[in-house]
Amino acid sequence: MSSAPRWFNALGKAYNDVEKSSIYQLATTDSFDKPHVRSHVHRAFLTPPSYLAIPLLLTTTDVRSPKVAQIAYSNTVELSWWIEGSSDQFRITGRARVIPAPEYAPKLVSANDDGCTAIASLDKESFNWEAKRQEVFENISRHIRAGFCAPVPGSVLNGGYDEQNDWVDTVENQRDARTDEEKKNTAKAFGNFALIVIEPFEVDWVQMGVTPNRRTRFRREGDAWEEQVIVP
Amino acid sequence: MSSAPRWFNALGKAYNDVEKSSIYQLATTDSFDKPHVRSHVHRAFLTPPSYLAIPLLLTTTDVRSPKVAQIAYSNTVELSWWIEGSSDQFRITGRARVIPAPEYAPKLVSANDDGCTAIASLDKESFNWEAKRQEVFENISRHIRAGFCAPVPGSVLNGGYDEQNDWVDTVENQRDARTDEEKKNTAKAFGNFALIVIEPFEVDWVQMGVTPNRRTRFRREGDAWEEQVIVP
Repeated sequence: MSSAPRWFNALGKAYNDVEKSSIYQLATTDSFDKPHVRSHVHRAFLTPPSYLAIPLLLTTTDVRSPKVAQIAYSNTVELSWWIEGSSDQFRITGRARVIPAPEYAPKLVSANDDGCTAIASLDKESFNWEAKRQEVFENISRHIRAGFCAPVPGSVLNGGYDEQNDWVDTVENQRDARTDEEKKNTAKAFGNFALIVIEPFEVDWVQMGVTPNRRTRFRREGDAWEEQVIVP
Repeated sequence: MSSAPRWFNALGKAYNDVEKSSIYQLATTDSFDKPHVRSHVHRAFLTPPSYLAIPLLLTTTDVRSPKVAQIAYSNTVELSWWIEGSSDQFRITGRARVIPAPEYAPKLVSANDDGCTAIASLDKESFNWEAKRQEVFENISRHIRAGFCAPVPGSVLNGGYDEQNDWVDTVENQRDARTDEEKKNTAKAFGNFALIVIEPFEVDWVQMGVTPNRRTRFRREGDAWEEQVIVP
């Protein structure tokens, strides 16, 4: 067991010091090997007790989104986290696992998390992924939750924007859902809600806020990080 | 000749109204089909006179950067432009051409800009790419210019950050370089400086700042954009 890597302390500092830095862009490839990228909200870090050196990143998706198949297809994913206030960029290359509702799990293509030491350690310790999925679902807004009740993301609305007027615009969490209607919506939204867990293998940290700019590359072997200063 | 597409007017409005929205994340794939993504500064739009409906995006790179080979390899690129102030996301899928110093051009792998109607129209009209490269080079800061004089981006500095202390930290543009040393640095930096021109084929516009959120997909056929309202 080692301690938290230097890049993670730097990321935590930049992330905590600066408002509105919770958005990063996650890149995947589709089955034609075309690159795709979209903004994600960072939801939490998750550090396995047995692997303090391998902090995981948690974000979320609708299980019906095309990115779920792309994550299963991509051997690696990469994210670019630009922190405006400190002018730091963290490019994190890793593997990802999608954690859907248990009833969806068997349908998902292989999780593509071979070699994910930290994720495997959580499995081994019987980490309660479903409880974590529940916790993150409770912490998102009622409005964001409602999005998981909508039709399949990306499907065409022939009636235009007006078609959305009849959709539910807020969904309660399990504790606050009272009426049958509310409970039904909560169950539906929670059924489509999935976590994405990213285990980092390489981190490229560029500090644009210092002169001269600095760039440091961290590569993992097991749970040890090799650190190299490189040309920005 | 058609007029500017609706997504471009929306992007221009969000971009112009909001400070510090000039950074987007550009995704490519490497020759192992792994996704890569990094932050880029948007430098300019370039609308071909014969194709007002196909505005191009201009950004820059060091010609020695791995992303140059990735762009040549990738059949498409995709960028995610998150505009914090208005909560708009524009995901733009397109093809890219790298425009290096003329002496580098023959060494670059095929530009991979097949079907790029707008870029081809500029070639046909003998658009002066070298003058555009010069103009963008003049508009970046003396400090950013100095980065193009450094050793190959991503190469290891065994001496650590201190090794950077001897590097030039500002480089003048061609007009202001006076001494032989300054002129040499300017020539070296300009030699490594390259434009990336992106021709869009599909744009996925998500408006997170309105309730209910709206999402609109624009797909190009020739110079006509087909617009569909889709589920966010």
